[in-house]
Amino acid sequence: MHIGFLGLGNMGGPMARNLLKAGHRLSVYDPSATAVAGLAEAGAQPADSPAAVARAGVEAIITMLPAAAQVRQVYLGDDGLLAHVPAGVLLIDSSTIDPMSAREVAAAAARNGNPMVDAPVSGGTVGAAAATLTFMVGGSEAQFQQAQPILSAMGRNIVHCGASGNGQVAKVANNMLLGISMIGVAEAMSLGVALGMDAKVLAGVINSSSGRCWSSEVNNPFPGVLENGPASRGYSGGFGTDLMLKDLGLASEAAKQVRQPVILGALAQQLYQASSLRGQGALDFSAIIRLYRPEDAT
Amino acid sequence: MHIGFLGLGNMGGPMARNLLKAGHRLSVYDPSATAVAGLAEAGAQPADSPAAVARAGVEAIITMLPAAAQVRQVYLGDDGLLAHVPAGVLLIDSSTIDPMSAREVAAAAARNGNPMVDAPVSGGTVGAAAATLTFMVGGSEAQFQQAQPILSAMGRNIVHCGASGNGQVAKVANNMLLGISMIGVAEAMSLGVALGMDAKVLAGVINSSSGRCWSSEVNNPFPGVLENGPASRGYSGGFGTDLMLKDLGLASEAAKQVRQPVILGALAQQLYQASSLRGQGALDFSAIIRLYRPEDAT
Amino acid sequence: MHIGFLGLGNMGGPMARNLLKAGHRLSVYDPSATAVAGLAEAGAQPADSPAAVARAGVEAIITMLPAAAQVRQVYLGDDGLLAHVPAGVLLIDSSTIDPMSAREVAAAAARNGNPMVDAPVSGGTVGAAAATLTFMVGGSEAQFQQAQPILSAMGRNIVHCGASGNGQVAKVANNMLLGISMIGVAEAMSLGVALGMDAKVLAGVINSSSGRCWSSEVNNPFPGVLENGPASRGYSGGFGTDLMLKDLGLASEAAKQVRQPVILGALAQQLYQASSLRGQGALDFSAIIRLYRPEDAT
Amino acid sequence: MHIGFLGLGNMGGPMARNLLKAGHRLSVYDPSATAVAGLAEAGAQPADSPAAVARAGVEAIITMLPAAAQVRQVYLGDDGLLAHVPAGVLLIDSSTIDPMSAREVAAAAARNGNPMVDAPVSGGTVGAAAATLTFMVGGSEAQFQQAQPILSAMGRNIVHCGASGNGQVAKVANNMLLGISMIGVAEAMSLGVALGMDAKVLAGVINSSSGRCWSSEVNNPFPGVLENGPASRGYSGGFGTDLMLKDLGLASEAAKQVRQPVILGALAQQLYQASSLRGQGALDFSAIIRLYRPEDAT
Repeated sequence: MHIGFLGLGNMGGPMARNLLKAGHRLSVYDPSATAVAGLAEAGAQPADSPAAVARAGVEAIITMLPAAAQVRQVYLGDDGLLAHVPAGVLLIDSSTIDPMSAREVAAAAARNGNPMVDAPVSGGTVGAAAATLTFMVGGSEAQFQQAQPILSAMGRNIVHCGASGNGQVAKVANNMLLGISMIGVAEAMSLGVALGMDAKVLAGVINSSSGRCWSSEVNNPFPGVLENGPASRGYSGGFGTDLMLKDLGLASEAAKQVRQPVILGALAQQLYQASSLRGQGALDFSAIIRLYRPEDAT
Repeated sequence: MHIGFLGLGNMGGPMARNLLKAGHRLSVYDPSATAVAGLAEAGAQPADSPAAVARAGVEAIITMLPAAAQVRQVYLGDDGLLAHVPAGVLLIDSSTIDPMSAREVAAAAARNGNPMVDAPVSGGTVGAAAATLTFMVGGSEAQFQQAQPILSAMGRNIVHCGASGNGQVAKVANNMLLGISMIGVAEAMSLGVALGMDAKVLAGVINSSSGRCWSSEVNNPFPGVLENGPASRGYSGGFGTDLMLKDLGLASEAAKQVRQPVILGALAQQLYQASSLRGQGALDFSAIIRLYRPEDAT
Repeated sequence: MHIGFLGLGNMGGPMARNLLKAGHRLSVYDPSATAVAGLAEAGAQPADSPAAVARAGVEAIITMLPAAAQVRQVYLGDDGLLAHVPAGVLLIDSSTIDPMSAREVAAAAARNGNPMVDAPVSGGTVGAAAATLTFMVGGSEAQFQQAQPILSAMGRNIVHCGASGNGQVAKVANNMLLGISMIGVAEAMSLGVALGMDAKVLAGVINSSSGRCWSSEVNNPFPGVLENGPASRGYSGGFGTDLMLKDLGLASEAAKQVRQPVILGALAQQLYQASSLRGQGALDFSAIIRLYRPEDAT
Repeated sequence: MHIGFLGLGNMGGPMARNLLKAGHRLSVYDPSATAVAGLAEAGAQPADSPAAVARAGVEAIITMLPAAAQVRQVYLGDDGLLAHVPAGVLLIDSSTIDPMSAREVAAAAARNGNPMVDAPVSGGTVGAAAATLTFMVGGSEAQFQQAQPILSAMGRNIVHCGASGNGQVAKVANNMLLGISMIGVAEAMSLGVALGMDAKVLAGVINSSSGRCWSSEVNNPFPGVLENGPASRGYSGGFGTDLMLKDLGLASEAAKQVRQPVILGALAQQLYQASSLRGQGALDFSAIIRLYRPEDAT
């Protein structure tokens, strides 16, 4: 297939490369000429604007952009995709944005004759490079069927979450819960150790009991519990605190729009903000445990 | 073995019966004559005081009492167990109490020449009846080895948590995390559904992603997600809100004693208190979701 | 003076009437023809668009609009005020919006040659009718001096808060604190009464001690403490829960933009959201106490 | 009058001296011989046990002890006050303890024939030295009348809070609100300054508006706003974080006993605990603002 790809950053770059590896033909654009040049070297055809990608004869376009403002501009701007793309071309937005914006852009695409799905990802830069991302897809069943083969070249788990916007809904709901659970694990581990228990033994009990969760099993924040986790290498790598903050910001904003209280979710957002304020924005979000154990911080 | 058993309530009663079924000989006491009579009918030897149990020639004594005050009285009171039990008899306290009290009583037992472990349980009345409880055991390795065969007649998972008091530590830490996670799941599910997603689809995404936890998988609070869960039968049965409140009270009290902040833990305690205040104290703790979806309440 | 006034709702309507009473000549616009007709009857000159007000020969224009989106449209839209107003005309925005938007619009006004201040109010519809509002004004000293005589016809307390946007900053900071204090008073009063104390006696002690605040003295949420307060008339009138929610939403959004944690502020927002969810959105914000005393709710 | 005084620490010592200055005759006891010697030098008659004070022919006894455990021991212990004091002697406990314990001890005193009031104080060591303390008194009207002249020698504001225990209720309720308000002020000030406003101007606006409270006016936590406040001298002096923590612990414990949610109160407790964990336990409680502005910490 001939596919357009806009947004070649830390996530989009490796995703586009995986499409090339899978044998697709790519037309790519990014405001950074260096990013475009890198993909061109790998075999993609460079374009000098979103409009140029839209008119390059592509069958589908994928966008991977930082936030809703860029998504609106790239799709809805005077010289944006919808102003130039032929009807029928499939549009896939893998940016993480608020569900309302996703639905607005998809509705505009529909009026333009373009099927569109929101397909935010989880799995981070490691998953992007290894083509093991999870895609949470919002759109009709037919749109999902159309997008799935393309997404499969970049991810392992392609989940249909229901109608337009629901990919974004699933992502913010899941990540809000993740952000809460991580702090819960940080508190439970800190409390248990403060009360005299060995951290590994406590993690073992929790993981075989009703407290178990992804954050206790796969990314336990207590140093030394998991030999290869971020907590055992000074919280470098992993899923950055500031990225978690972005997702919690989307969650609380979406909650406000539908007038749904999210008490622990909003509190978690503030605690990660406090962690970021202490200089931990670029560290894995599990570094939140240092709010509870300042002696661990350097 | 000849075993003493004190405390024959909703939990202790079925636990004692399982010891009888396993072939042990029992001497039992409870302030309720009815409870004692029930066990006597099942083959146990009734006693009319803790002291009488202590002097009945038992090799071990198990206690299952409501709170630390009763544990202190039964063990340390003027006419309590330690005043009457011969040195060498193994003492097992399966009550859920604060770790400091557990350690004080065990230290008094040691001065009396009695090995003692704290062995609080999880698994509820269903697990007590089916002999599938989890025991979290605090004591030396030798004491754990001594207690294990006895506990095995009442539970399936006997976990050594380290030195004296650590069984209690493991329980309060785990249950604090459980209480937090449940609210996190309640918020994430409520938010996702308010934003237009199907509850079962959302639960499916979460359970295959980084938000997954015991509360999302095994006891999802959203009505209809799990056909046999408390949420699908009006939150009857399960682990009562007021029992969760008791455990969160122990957690925040223990945290206070060791000067460890537990921000989400303390907030969760207050939210379950608010749930209890709305008449949900006897319902499964997952009924907390009604704070977020009052329209679900009858 | 000849003054333009846009936005003739519950607040703007009475404010405009006070300008007329003070002898000013008014040109007015509102999307609601009824609102415009009402002011015309009182002596104002009706206009059929913002542009018409801008070109009516006014010396100053006041806007009182629901949110930032309307402010941006009315000032910056293709047919908005800045496209039509002559340079030099003073612009006063009394809407409550986020500080960043206020600064952007004021910067655009400056480029257009128009001095502009943000001047959000407190005092509610009662203060608007009685001309006793407080205006929190952001702009240069010269701009403040220019705006003050006009604002004095509508309010009693005209406070210069510093440079552009700082009127909005003062309002969101003050109201966030107000929202927190009110919940604090609700909890302290509920706790004291639950522990057996008389509500009026407790309020008296607090008001002569270090817990005293506007919410304990002027708008005590406990029924019966203040004979004429909202709490003694079923929480009708006063400052609505949903208006408090709007201000807390602005506060947490502004905090996010400058990466400042506001832990109690964010939690307060969620608790008022929970209060609104229980049907209390139109009641005075002190009705939050019913979360703590559900028996008071009908 | 001949008065007994037990507990001659940082608070009790200066309080006892003020009784001497007022012309009363004192019999005093403290576990610290140095403390007793100090008072003896000032004219008090030393005693070597609580019992000795009780039998010294006193007309009233005042106790100023660290916590409920000591109050129980001193009054109810085998060799305690109630075992030795003649009926009719007035007992005044100025310790800060939980209301339930206060009521239990007062009930035991009543059975012994002794009128007893709880009379915890606010005003700190400065108020104790200057005889400007506030006393919050729980007991019958007659008991209050009896205690008032004695308390007047040590304080300026003697408030009758209702029946036995209500002095303690008033203190924990007020101080919980104080602890919440202070954090609210810390957040509002931090937010306003982060958004570009001058701290003194913001404090001025708040203090003339609906956010005003004791913490914004008298002990504003932002450095430089109040020239003589703790915030302008590195948070030394004032009301220590760990003392606030003690009071919030009493509040949340009392709330638990009566099953009253205190959401912000419990959260405030955890935040002061986090502040203490960062080494600020001995600083004025307004140092909590450093959680929001870590750059202010040295």
